[in-house]
Amino acid sequence: MQILLTVAELRQWSRAHRSAGRSIGLVPTMGALHAGHASLIRAAAASCSQVVVSIFVNPTQFGPNEDYARYPRTFDADCALAESEGSAAIFAPSVEDLYPAGATTFVDVEGLSNRLDGASRPGHFRGVATVVSKLFIAAEPDRAFFGQKDAAQVAVLRRMTTDLLLPVEIVVCPIVRDADGLALSSRNIYLSPAERARALVLSQAVHKVESLAATGERRASVLLEAAHQLFAAVPEVRIDYIALVDWATLLPVEAAIPGTLFAAAAYVGATRLIDNAVLDSDALREPSRRLEIRTLEERDREGYIRKPQNADESRLGEAEVSIPLRNLPSSLHS
Amino acid sequence: MQILLTVAELRQWSRAHRSAGRSIGLVPTMGALHAGHASLIRAAAASCSQVVVSIFVNPTQFGPNEDYARYPRTFDADCALAESEGSAAIFAPSVEDLYPAGATTFVDVEGLSNRLDGASRPGHFRGVATVVSKLFIAAEPDRAFFGQKDAAQVAVLRRMTTDLLLPVEIVVCPIVRDADGLALSSRNIYLSPAERARALVLSQAVHKVESLAATGERRASVLLEAAHQLFAAVPEVRIDYIALVDWATLLPVEAAIPGTLFAAAAYVGATRLIDNAVLDSDALREPSRRLEIRTLEERDREGYIRKPQNADESRLGEAEVSIPLRNLPSSLHS
Repeated sequence: MQILLTVAELRQWSRAHRSAGRSIGLVPTMGALHAGHASLIRAAAASCSQVVVSIFVNPTQFGPNEDYARYPRTFDADCALAESEGSAAIFAPSVEDLYPAGATTFVDVEGLSNRLDGASRPGHFRGVATVVSKLFIAAEPDRAFFGQKDAAQVAVLRRMTTDLLLPVEIVVCPIVRDADGLALSSRNIYLSPAERARALVLSQAVHKVESLAATGERRASVLLEAAHQLFAAVPEVRIDYIALVDWATLLPVEAAIPGTLFAAAAYVGATRLIDNAVLDSDALREPSRRLEIRTLEERDREGYIRKPQNADESRLGEAEVSIPLRNLPSSLHS
Repeated sequence: MQILLTVAELRQWSRAHRSAGRSIGLVPTMGALHAGHASLIRAAAASCSQVVVSIFVNPTQFGPNEDYARYPRTFDADCALAESEGSAAIFAPSVEDLYPAGATTFVDVEGLSNRLDGASRPGHFRGVATVVSKLFIAAEPDRAFFGQKDAAQVAVLRRMTTDLLLPVEIVVCPIVRDADGLALSSRNIYLSPAERARALVLSQAVHKVESLAATGERRASVLLEAAHQLFAAVPEVRIDYIALVDWATLLPVEAAIPGTLFAAAAYVGATRLIDNAVLDSDALREPSRRLEIRTLEERDREGYIRKPQNADESRLGEAEVSIPLRNLPSSLHS
């Protein structure tokens, strides 16, 4: 396995393989690799002839009071894991390689970058979009692999890649969990045993919402309340957000459809953890099932048919409202 | 000559030539081509085996009260000129090609984008950096050609290209002028005959400052005052800025050195025009010439050794101060 230390080395490596007709897979990471990263590298190796894993703790995506300095750095173990999973190269640049002296250029995905994790971590997604655009430009991969665990990041990067015309296919791989259900994260090592026990409320909430959706429950109010009830039993865990959103826009929806994102973020002690599910139950494909039994007035009273709160929500709000209405008896149409 | 209408067509064209070992030159334009653009296309054809001229009036670089709708559009004449100067292809995308539905991503070169033209045209350089980064990503050129007339744009795009790791060499070509000295611009067609006569004050100011620098005059105060005097004789022309700046940072300098940018922008009627010179007189290479004859106190009284006004200026201010001090008799050092 090759260790590439500069942008020039990475570009030379990538272009040599491309000109020989080989496809390139990129797995961007901040190191501290775990089984979640391993699954990304395996997926990349399965669909690309050459895989490069980038290891770069990106300073611009950390807030001033976040854990940039103490973020775990385990380079030798990372290299061993990457190689064992089929990586052909590691790209391990310095900060000065990715941010040349005097750099002031940022890639900003407006709107999206201020939602979910972006709302509580100002500047975070600007840093992520900036560094990933640089990695795409430098590595020129055919495909890049990201974990669904960072679901809001995926939405930001899909939008960025489309908008900047970057010729890279974004591949999203499933969340990998420990046996107790906790989603794998490099930050899990910060948790004390007591905190780790409390942290399970995140995956329990995700599981609960998935189970409800599997029964055909589509109402955001019901799905979110179920999650909040689980968190209420663990008051030491401070909720950052619990949300049901359109995965492309990260804007709240009133009713789940296949592809809707349920996501949660919470502080367990000083450690901020996230988890999510992309709801895809077949039950959600039958929008009439739970709705026809109630009148329009009953549903309105429940707040199910909610008017868009502002211009930002109006497009999505209208789309969501249209789905249940189509399935009501025609006499109820206004 | 090929007409490429979509990003996919452009990329396919570019990659076919690159894989055959041919170099690609890109000349980004907004159309309404004139002899200035012709010089860029000629320069590109001289150093690259394949030249593509992009023609795209970029909506995101126009302010709400600017001339996006009425900007001159002369596609057929542009194609004829590009072909006659050696262009192999025209890239003429739609707005939807460069800004996919729902696009919210912008490339922001912070700091630089708010100086000179960026100060009076908020958002202008954000639009320029965004569209040029997309053109670079889509066309994958070896070299891209820009006119020195848009000197602040050149500074923004050099910074953007370096920061985003784009593997493109920026080539800057000299200003092309009409016989009367007016720098060529697609916007010159807006000028009435009387306005056109008044507009000559821009090139006269540029010429005056160049002449003074050629005599060894380095003081910003003197160079800028000479330009202001010329503008004072034409009160109908409203100055936007007259500035002596470091070309890389666009921050004001107190003394010219080779490479310093003198730039002016002014409204002639409703039309905003710009002009500039990159000072490069040999006389500026002899920093002791005009300085040793005065004492430090005299120069301080003249405001020559100015303290940086704010953090943004401090780095440059220190650098500028250090140059004359090095050439003073050692007894004057503090």
